[in-house]
Amino acid sequence: MDELKLRILTDGKNLGGGILKVDGFINHQVDPALMDACGQELATRLARAKPTKILTAEISGIAPALTTAIHLGVPVVYARKSKPVTMPDQIFLTLAPSHTKGRTVELIVSPEYLGASERVLIVDDFLATGQTILGLVRLAQAAGAKVVGVGAVIEKTFEGGRDALAHLGIPIESLAVITDMTDGKIVFGH
Amino acid sequence: MDELKLRILTDGKNLGGGILKVDGFINHQVDPALMDACGQELATRLARAKPTKILTAEISGIAPALTTAIHLGVPVVYARKSKPVTMPDQIFLTLAPSHTKGRTVELIVSPEYLGASERVLIVDDFLATGQTILGLVRLAQAAGAKVVGVGAVIEKTFEGGRDALAHLGIPIESLAVITDMTDGKIVFGH
Repeated sequence: MDELKLRILTDGKNLGGGILKVDGFINHQVDPALMDACGQELATRLARAKPTKILTAEISGIAPALTTAIHLGVPVVYARKSKPVTMPDQIFLTLAPSHTKGRTVELIVSPEYLGASERVLIVDDFLATGQTILGLVRLAQAAGAKVVGVGAVIEKTFEGGRDALAHLGIPIESLAVITDMTDGKIVFGH
Repeated sequence: MDELKLRILTDGKNLGGGILKVDGFINHQVDPALMDACGQELATRLARAKPTKILTAEISGIAPALTTAIHLGVPVVYARKSKPVTMPDQIFLTLAPSHTKGRTVELIVSPEYLGASERVLIVDDFLATGQTILGLVRLAQAAGAKVVGVGAVIEKTFEGGRDALAHLGIPIESLAVITDMTDGKIVFGH
């Protein structure tokens, strides 16, 4: 998606260690027109998976998952990292190592909103190591639901996430694929 | 906003103690069409404040703030509750007591995305005690920005938030105003 790649080159920053700063338009400040366009593109590419629900993780997955949901016309559920008082005692919970946080986080979904009949599309801002997405896959599987696709705004291929998800045998779509961030570079694949 | 009030009556739950569960369509599972309609209505009602930026707090403020931003065509910034590695060392930080969490949370914004020339519209899912919104007001004021309006999806008048914000002298818009939740009731004002 050229508009996104151009924005990454203009406003993104390679902080080293594989960390891409996109705080100015994706995950602290959000450019609503760009995020809406990302949602529309993910929806177009993944509609063939016929999802009935989108699943993401708070916090930075919410914006792209919501705009994708608006364009697909299906509900979106965001896994919580702590259990709110409004959630029932019986929950789906899994642990996922967070690369950027350097620790393990909990991902929690209420069984009220994830059922065995669902076809789940997982959407997140980044596909990096794939650990968060694998955590969401486990939550969907715990509910008996079928995971039918994965969509990410930005993929960093050198962190191996696509390989980690390959065994699922489902479509994986990323809007900007970055193949190399060594020496301050930001190199896109095609 | 009748569509929202009807949904609250159908799918919302009064859990007692002033806690309204809207996990099924606002803040765990999100109904994208309803959330988009809420954003459009907040944008229509608050456009006269001529905001240049929307400010909200993660987590559950993100969805309504983003859809409002899409309809107003201005960027949205969500205050973080912990500082990500991509944020500079010098930040705006304030503490806000969280009614539902029973503890104080940090609200953090990077000075990169909140400047003195901004006209800030604050959007959140709930206007209850007003403490989170007042925290966001302090962040905007620390940046030298002008707070020009407040928008909330649901207001609980009996928790006093509107009075706590009255000194700001700015428009405050809520899409569903709940005046009474005693004895399991959900009573709307007009």
